[in-house]
Amino acid sequence: MRYTRVSVGGRAVWGRVGEEDIELLSESPLECDPDVIGTVARATAVWLPPVVPPVFYAVGYNYPRHIAHAGATTPDRPEVGYRANNALTGHGSPIVKPVEVEGRFEAEPELVAVIGRPVRHATYEEARKSVFGWTIGNDVSARTWQHRDRTFWRSKNSDTFKPMGPWIETDVDALAQTTTLRVNGAERASFPTGDMVYDPFDHIVEITRHITLHPGDVLWMGAESTCQIEPGDTVDVEISGIGVLSNPVQLEGNRA
Amino acid sequence: MRYTRVSVGGRAVWGRVGEEDIELLSESPLECDPDVIGTVARATAVWLPPVVPPVFYAVGYNYPRHIAHAGATTPDRPEVGYRANNALTGHGSPIVKPVEVEGRFEAEPELVAVIGRPVRHATYEEARKSVFGWTIGNDVSARTWQHRDRTFWRSKNSDTFKPMGPWIETDVDALAQTTTLRVNGAERASFPTGDMVYDPFDHIVEITRHITLHPGDVLWMGAESTCQIEPGDTVDVEISGIGVLSNPVQLEGNRA
Repeated sequence: MRYTRVSVGGRAVWGRVGEEDIELLSESPLECDPDVIGTVARATAVWLPPVVPPVFYAVGYNYPRHIAHAGATTPDRPEVGYRANNALTGHGSPIVKPVEVEGRFEAEPELVAVIGRPVRHATYEEARKSVFGWTIGNDVSARTWQHRDRTFWRSKNSDTFKPMGPWIETDVDALAQTTTLRVNGAERASFPTGDMVYDPFDHIVEITRHITLHPGDVLWMGAESTCQIEPGDTVDVEISGIGVLSNPVQLEGNRA
Repeated sequence: MRYTRVSVGGRAVWGRVGEEDIELLSESPLECDPDVIGTVARATAVWLPPVVPPVFYAVGYNYPRHIAHAGATTPDRPEVGYRANNALTGHGSPIVKPVEVEGRFEAEPELVAVIGRPVRHATYEEARKSVFGWTIGNDVSARTWQHRDRTFWRSKNSDTFKPMGPWIETDVDALAQTTTLRVNGAERASFPTGDMVYDPFDHIVEITRHITLHPGDVLWMGAESTCQIEPGDTVDVEISGIGVLSNPVQLEGNRA
């Protein structure tokens, strides 16, 4: 199944995505079996981030090639940081580049695990069962701010810097897929989605030693490769078996 | 007014706090004027964190004495990090020290601003108006993890490490108050709440250059002084004009 949220009359409504239409749902499918309350055509849907997480977890260094490229050391255990909900935006909505951003402005294509049940002190098998499904994230980053600031507050969490979607796919072997990054249709990176130092379940085991994960929490799994994006570009992140997250890039205050 | 949330039959309900009783409210007072739907006695109330924020902002170095003590440099502009909602716990609930924690385990008494309206590109005066009220936070920290890990994920965000409450006070000049930290009734620190490098409104002006703040977002303002806490202790953070946030400390798996 593919679940998402769409904007209907300015209100966020859960939906189940079909080939042509999206069935609108009475409530979140994460914790119950909702009723169908309507339908909208996919072609005209306004896509929202498929979930607004109670906690937004993000893994940094997790792909061997990225670690080597950054000259970083391989982490000796899974570790996570955070991103912020204000930055989330849906499939099709613009990534807005602030006018003050100088230097590299980059896309990072990431697999996202969506938690489906409360979980603490998970075994690896329990961690597997705790994942409701998988979606796609683009961890847009302003590098000058990232290197200058003490935290990632504006470099990675300015409004619209976290496109997520287009939906949560519940039936896919996410780690056996391929992640592809395209700008204006041209491939800029492609890597095996599962080529991670620690997989999502390793992270859930480690996190839940001290932390309760809750339904709707998301875990962004890091990127192997990144690329520069500019106003006027359209950036697509595809993960085979899940879908394509596509967003135009605009300069703040403009419609470029 | 003083607003909080309490647990009623396992459900979180907003309340307006009086001298003896808490009036239960039909919905959040942040965005509307709710109806009174019942009453519980303060003496038997189960206090919850007064709000679950969409984004949980936290300031690090913000008091001159703390910065000097840490040998840090005074930040040249307001900057924020993040904490995580899983770690929130209410007034009266235990702070649970994980058995794996070694070294200093400390309380940090903090003023908390609660945002009441959407705000972006705020002036200082708009920042003032965007604050709904003020509460109290205890930024419990496991120092060995804090210094060892790449992020603050477990050092500051393990379950129960973020007591917040007991309520949101809407009618107080928060920056003119005194913050006092007590362990088992003995004073361990006391400082002028407003003796900050950058005040909450300075931070809101800076944050909203790039980020939309939303109703319910919280901004923890940092601590001047900290102190060691141990299982068996009761730790109180008082901010005059707001109230007292009190929590017992337990060892994980125990009731000590």
